[in-house]
Amino acid sequence: MYLIKIGGSLTYHVKPLLTTLKTYAKEKDKNIVIIPGGGEFANVIRKIDKKLHISNSLSHKLAIKSMDLVGEVFSEIGGIKKYDNLFDLKKEIRKENIAILLPSTILLSTDMAEHSWSITSDSLSLYIGKLLDVKEIIIATDVDGIYDKFPGGKLLNTINANDIKGLTSVDEKFPILLKQFKMKAYVVNGKFPERVIDIFERKNTICTKII
Amino acid sequence: MYLIKIGGSLTYHVKPLLTTLKTYAKEKDKNIVIIPGGGEFANVIRKIDKKLHISNSLSHKLAIKSMDLVGEVFSEIGGIKKYDNLFDLKKEIRKENIAILLPSTILLSTDMAEHSWSITSDSLSLYIGKLLDVKEIIIATDVDGIYDKFPGGKLLNTINANDIKGLTSVDEKFPILLKQFKMKAYVVNGKFPERVIDIFERKNTICTKII
Repeated sequence: MYLIKIGGSLTYHVKPLLTTLKTYAKEKDKNIVIIPGGGEFANVIRKIDKKLHISNSLSHKLAIKSMDLVGEVFSEIGGIKKYDNLFDLKKEIRKENIAILLPSTILLSTDMAEHSWSITSDSLSLYIGKLLDVKEIIIATDVDGIYDKFPGGKLLNTINANDIKGLTSVDEKFPILLKQFKMKAYVVNGKFPERVIDIFERKNTICTKII
Repeated sequence: MYLIKIGGSLTYHVKPLLTTLKTYAKEKDKNIVIIPGGGEFANVIRKIDKKLHISNSLSHKLAIKSMDLVGEVFSEIGGIKKYDNLFDLKKEIRKENIAILLPSTILLSTDMAEHSWSITSDSLSLYIGKLLDVKEIIIATDVDGIYDKFPGGKLLNTINANDIKGLTSVDEKFPILLKQFKMKAYVVNGKFPERVIDIFERKNTICTKII
């Protein structure tokens, strides 16, 4: 099973990626689970938080619910079924080999994650990955990977989770959880769906692998 | 029971209104039900719809879910309990005299309204008003009421629902539903909480009454 988190920043460019994933899953008979980011909905929450100083818990809850909203959009755009629980998802994914997870039911009912902005949809996707017992996750975003400095730095092929510091394309808690859950991650530009396929196929491609 | 829909456009100025309503409800032992608008979350959906042409049904669903998100913010900012169903709301409102309704459970489970952008949180609030069997609704927004033309026109004290045409501070379907449900409405600027209280108390104030 492949787990891919598709950032909300890709919303307006997501169709080719979803179409490619759907076709690949069917043709190769490989199961792909998609987790959506919160995108511009999450940005509205950041703005509300900045102006009104709402609690971290409320920001966390609303950010999680934003992921569902983006997931609904991905589902319609990609013609891919959505599920709010892993029981149904695991049962039904056999039919079409691809599914979108609307994660709020799982994430709020289990309340596994810290309530803070250092946890965003990247880290939350790792908790889902743990439940799905996958060893790898692909983070599809709107940049080519992680750079040694940003902007203007050099794209890194591989980085150790311990070496991720400061502003990158993944959230603050992500490298810590990645180690804790003994998982690996690929950060890749979702505007180039062929790169995601290259990762599935273990081919060299433009991305950053976090080990 | 008073029913007031508070527009999401008031999010950043909502605290004085919520505080005033909470105090008034307690002191006068009057029940106030608050329905939130979708605010900037709904604007994100409009943008996604414009760029990706999602279905009217999906826009409708996401707009309804946006109302819940704003309701969660109002609940925390105002220290007012929130409910997602009228059974609990009607039972519990006796204690604190005020409640916020997160309307998505009701609106999606009953699916009473047309799926179109001519129905927004204003009209959706009328469906809730009908379920609550109220005869009046207050629409708190960020303008003083309905103008004979906008911008630059004269504020109308009263307008017949039949005469509402074109761009106003309520949605397109609102006057039609108002007649159909035999309800009256007040459009008032929520940045001036005393005007809302004046409406409760049947005093003259700056607002537009729709009959």
